[in-house]
Amino acid sequence: MPYFDAASAAPLHPVARQALLAALDEGWADPARLYREGRRARLLLDAAREAAAEAVGCRPDELVFTPSGTRAVHSGVSGALAGRRRVGRRLVVSAVEHSSVLHAGEAHAAAGGELVEVPVGRTGAVDPAVFAAALGEGTALACLQTANHEVGTEQPVAEVAAACRAAGVPLLVDAAQSLGRGPVPEGWSLLAASAHKWGGPAGVGLLAVRKGVRFAPQGPSDERESGRAPGFENLPAIVAAAASLRAVRAGAAAEDARLRALVDRIRTRVPELVPDVEVVGDPVRRLPHLVTFSCLYVDGETLLSALDREGFSVSSGSSCTSSTLTPSHVLRAMGVLSEGNVRISLPDGTEEADVDRFLAVLPGVVAAARDRLGAAPAPAAAPVDEVVVDALGKRCPLPVIELAKVIGTVRVGGTVVVLADDAAARLDIPAWCEMRGQEYVGEAPPHTYTVRRTS
Amino acid sequence: MPYFDAASAAPLHPVARQALLAALDEGWADPARLYREGRRARLLLDAAREAAAEAVGCRPDELVFTPSGTRAVHSGVSGALAGRRRVGRRLVVSAVEHSSVLHAGEAHAAAGGELVEVPVGRTGAVDPAVFAAALGEGTALACLQTANHEVGTEQPVAEVAAACRAAGVPLLVDAAQSLGRGPVPEGWSLLAASAHKWGGPAGVGLLAVRKGVRFAPQGPSDERESGRAPGFENLPAIVAAAASLRAVRAGAAAEDARLRALVDRIRTRVPELVPDVEVVGDPVRRLPHLVTFSCLYVDGETLLSALDREGFSVSSGSSCTSSTLTPSHVLRAMGVLSEGNVRISLPDGTEEADVDRFLAVLPGVVAAARDRLGAAPAPAAAPVDEVVVDALGKRCPLPVIELAKVIGTVRVGGTVVVLADDAAARLDIPAWCEMRGQEYVGEAPPHTYTVRRTS
Repeated sequence: MPYFDAASAAPLHPVARQALLAALDEGWADPARLYREGRRARLLLDAAREAAAEAVGCRPDELVFTPSGTRAVHSGVSGALAGRRRVGRRLVVSAVEHSSVLHAGEAHAAAGGELVEVPVGRTGAVDPAVFAAALGEGTALACLQTANHEVGTEQPVAEVAAACRAAGVPLLVDAAQSLGRGPVPEGWSLLAASAHKWGGPAGVGLLAVRKGVRFAPQGPSDERESGRAPGFENLPAIVAAAASLRAVRAGAAAEDARLRALVDRIRTRVPELVPDVEVVGDPVRRLPHLVTFSCLYVDGETLLSALDREGFSVSSGSSCTSSTLTPSHVLRAMGVLSEGNVRISLPDGTEEADVDRFLAVLPGVVAAARDRLGAAPAPAAAPVDEVVVDALGKRCPLPVIELAKVIGTVRVGGTVVVLADDAAARLDIPAWCEMRGQEYVGEAPPHTYTVRRTS
Repeated sequence: MPYFDAASAAPLHPVARQALLAALDEGWADPARLYREGRRARLLLDAAREAAAEAVGCRPDELVFTPSGTRAVHSGVSGALAGRRRVGRRLVVSAVEHSSVLHAGEAHAAAGGELVEVPVGRTGAVDPAVFAAALGEGTALACLQTANHEVGTEQPVAEVAAACRAAGVPLLVDAAQSLGRGPVPEGWSLLAASAHKWGGPAGVGLLAVRKGVRFAPQGPSDERESGRAPGFENLPAIVAAAASLRAVRAGAAAEDARLRALVDRIRTRVPELVPDVEVVGDPVRRLPHLVTFSCLYVDGETLLSALDREGFSVSSGSSCTSSTLTPSHVLRAMGVLSEGNVRISLPDGTEEADVDRFLAVLPGVVAAARDRLGAAPAPAAAPVDEVVVDALGKRCPLPVIELAKVIGTVRVGGTVVVLADDAAARLDIPAWCEMRGQEYVGEAPPHTYTVRRTS
């Protein structure tokens, strides 16, 4: 049963499992104690820290273990902001950061700080010059991911780091998606990552803070992890995380090349096999194992359920699969289609045959979902000047389906006005126009979108 | 090799280990996902929450899992304080709470809140009437442990809960030391606990908040654990924690009776076997498995090392074994001797023979340590009116050793003035006087303690 959602979580790496079992026996005691069980635990903790620091490219005393990648980001952002409180309260992040970064930014803004989101282009990457320009007066901290978790696009971290250095602003790099795959670009001041993205167990994140970076941990602290991550260390999991990181990185080069070829096959074949599909994210500067595409006229949840029945576990950034009723903030920031969105992230060891079977199954799954929603457009006999589509109260992908159904009923040069209050419409109606070669005239609040037929 | 520090950490319970291994296979996926691996993870998470809620005595939707007991306390305290911000900013805690509660209180005070510590008696218990009187105007939250982690004394939680209810103040109960041993007293509003105290793995705490208690989670949050514990759930560890809690509690009654008898033996025999010893904590209203005593004229670190060489792993609240150079805040609040402090907490399954071997070894270990420090008092030929002992710069237990050496050189009614800048002197000189039947006259700042010879 192929599992294609490695970017969410992956089964424990065999090396991690072995290390975890050994550390359950050897590393259960309090590493702060002086008796033999405590000393043994301390040795394991020190060794894990050294291994992780080597992978990160920092000194062991610059790195602490946290209970998750999310906690590493939260502690890193709040500590760095507090450490530079005197400089100012401006926090600059890319618009496509992981939600943990954005949540930390929202908490900062709620407490009176300033949050600036740097926009991205259609591939999902920031422009280093735009990022640099955002580093205005009073910037306490900037955050940038190494690669995006939803579309795989790599960010220009080295260039942005150089701009941050020039502006005297520390840069927190979220390396969650890439640390298991190879070296982190130079120039970061703080780095956060999450073990269960590299085959380690849940419950372990890491936060590295370069010596010399002003850092003031927020909230209550204790004597553990240099005062930066309170609470009893989750030592067996930490040991397993470090072992897994080393093992995964040792095999990364070969596996990445293999997965990159499989993803290239998906990127090429999906638009050939399925009509009205947009493959998003940078085709070259990208994570090797991750690809995302969106399908017009179909909702993400239906796709996911149908693929699940066929044995494929995938993820989606469509609004219709989340509890928030808004499309993924990443797709929104990129300005790309969000309906019928599918993210595939291949775990290490994914078989070529499973990818081929996915490609064989996908066209039928999409076609069936489209049929169910009656998505086939039917041109009318006598074209008119304007049609108004009332899709108020209808959820994604229905507004776009209604639009597509009637576009043939207006004359070339005529317009379709769509009334739609689903949040995804703002993204998906312009995206539909671009994909179908029609003109997006614009949006008139509230909930009115105008499209001109040009072909 | 007997390990007598179960109150710090314990090896994973066999049931927890088995559950952990199964959940590593079945529960590694993201429980928020809709595909089969995610649904399987969700089922495990729901079942673990139900089991934990049953043990705690609350509804499953009142309970969230956190990355540690410390994090549960931090989140519980800050969320409850923020939820009642309009009522006031007074936080009332016992003086002998776990450091996680005191650290949360210090963070609250640093942010402009008010922190009130309720004193304890010589056994370590609060007086419910004194606690009730502290619940003054603007009290947002009160905190009380079920039992003390250093001396084992049970707190009068039911009585304090009644007082809190009468005052309209929510009570956070830290059940870390007792949840694995049986039901929690009624009347709590919030409850925190830690899995690795009941044979579960590190990395799991729990926080229960009764419906109706005003609670506003602080810091960035996400959609996980009802918005009260951000970050990917540590599911295999959560499953193991819940399984262990159930197993441990099932056997608690029988094991507690057995351990209580072993601890009673230690409480009785140690003062018979070792001169100048004070056994602290309530002899009856106490945890079954924990006992603490302090030995005059010897430092805790020497004792710990010597016991470690004999194969016994124990803990100590003496200043000389910590990096802070101050004695345990619990012993300080109780006003009892801190030097030569030893805490023994027996893990489930401790053998009678190991306790007997400990009792056989201890007298020699203490005597050797005292010899090494030259602690034998030598009365002089011609008693004088006053002797001044300059112990400035000398660390615990040397000031008390110097005092004991010269007390015989002054006449009955004469005084010894001890100059000592070690923090433990403030505790240990009065404690010595009480134990040796001498009169403690008082302290004159800075660092001057006067003792009158009365026998």
